[in-house]
Amino acid sequence: MAAETKQTIDSTGEIIESTGKWAIALREKDVEAVISYYDSDVVMFDVVDPLVSNGTDLLRTRLTEWLSSFDGHMGFEVSDLKIEAGNYIAFCHGLNRVIGTKVDGVKIDMCWRATLCWRKIDGDWKITHSHASVPFNMETGMASLDLKP
Amino acid sequence: MAAETKQTIDSTGEIIESTGKWAIALREKDVEAVISYYDSDVVMFDVVDPLVSNGTDLLRTRLTEWLSSFDGHMGFEVSDLKIEAGNYIAFCHGLNRVIGTKVDGVKIDMCWRATLCWRKIDGDWKITHSHASVPFNMETGMASLDLKP
Repeated sequence: MAAETKQTIDSTGEIIESTGKWAIALREKDVEAVISYYDSDVVMFDVVDPLVSNGTDLLRTRLTEWLSSFDGHMGFEVSDLKIEAGNYIAFCHGLNRVIGTKVDGVKIDMCWRATLCWRKIDGDWKITHSHASVPFNMETGMASLDLKP
Repeated sequence: MAAETKQTIDSTGEIIESTGKWAIALREKDVEAVISYYDSDVVMFDVVDPLVSNGTDLLRTRLTEWLSSFDGHMGFEVSDLKIEAGNYIAFCHGLNRVIGTKVDGVKIDMCWRATLCWRKIDGDWKITHSHASVPFNMETGMASLDLKP
């Protein structure tokens, strides 16, 4: 149990570091650096359609599209991050917020929920499942794009 | 490593069983049986507003409301279930589908993405984080309530 606890603490630290570096890569719009944190077969539930998408090839396309839709720098913040980590399996969840201006001039200040699920593969933590979403308003059927924590 | 692998296989089996029993409890509209699978401090990202909700007291209220909004039996199915499990931490994700008739006569056939994150606490697997959502359509801003896998 002592060994288990020791490794769990190590794992939690590693996930904090990986999540931090992942966020920096996003903020720097470094698509390949972001993708390096994902398993090639990642199963993604994304904020926008479709229901499910798979794999880093598709992630690369979508990420490139999304990041290049911002005019210059976008602010990106992860808050309320909670991590639970074992020896080989970990998950973390929190709120992501992006503030920026789109190339068409539209100003964005949007918050979404993000869950990242990790597996340690050949010594490196990789995201094998990601779930990002906003809830919807039951009365209107509209996605709730302006909620803040 | 052999001991690790053996325990991982056990854990995966336990999560399959727990997820199966959780689904049966939902199908039977047995609120307390459903809630028994959650940690009392569970952090929930739900399909509908708000952004975040916490704890089994709130879950009980929302679940009771939701389940009693159906007229009689509702069909409930979990598909594409994938599980990754370690000794004390596990996660699973899949697609949930519900088919039924609301008490107001409206027919429902809806699919959503579900991620359940588990921790083994005092020998029992408990859901400490759940994330359920539908994506939205970027053109219309509407939640995509009619997508099927």
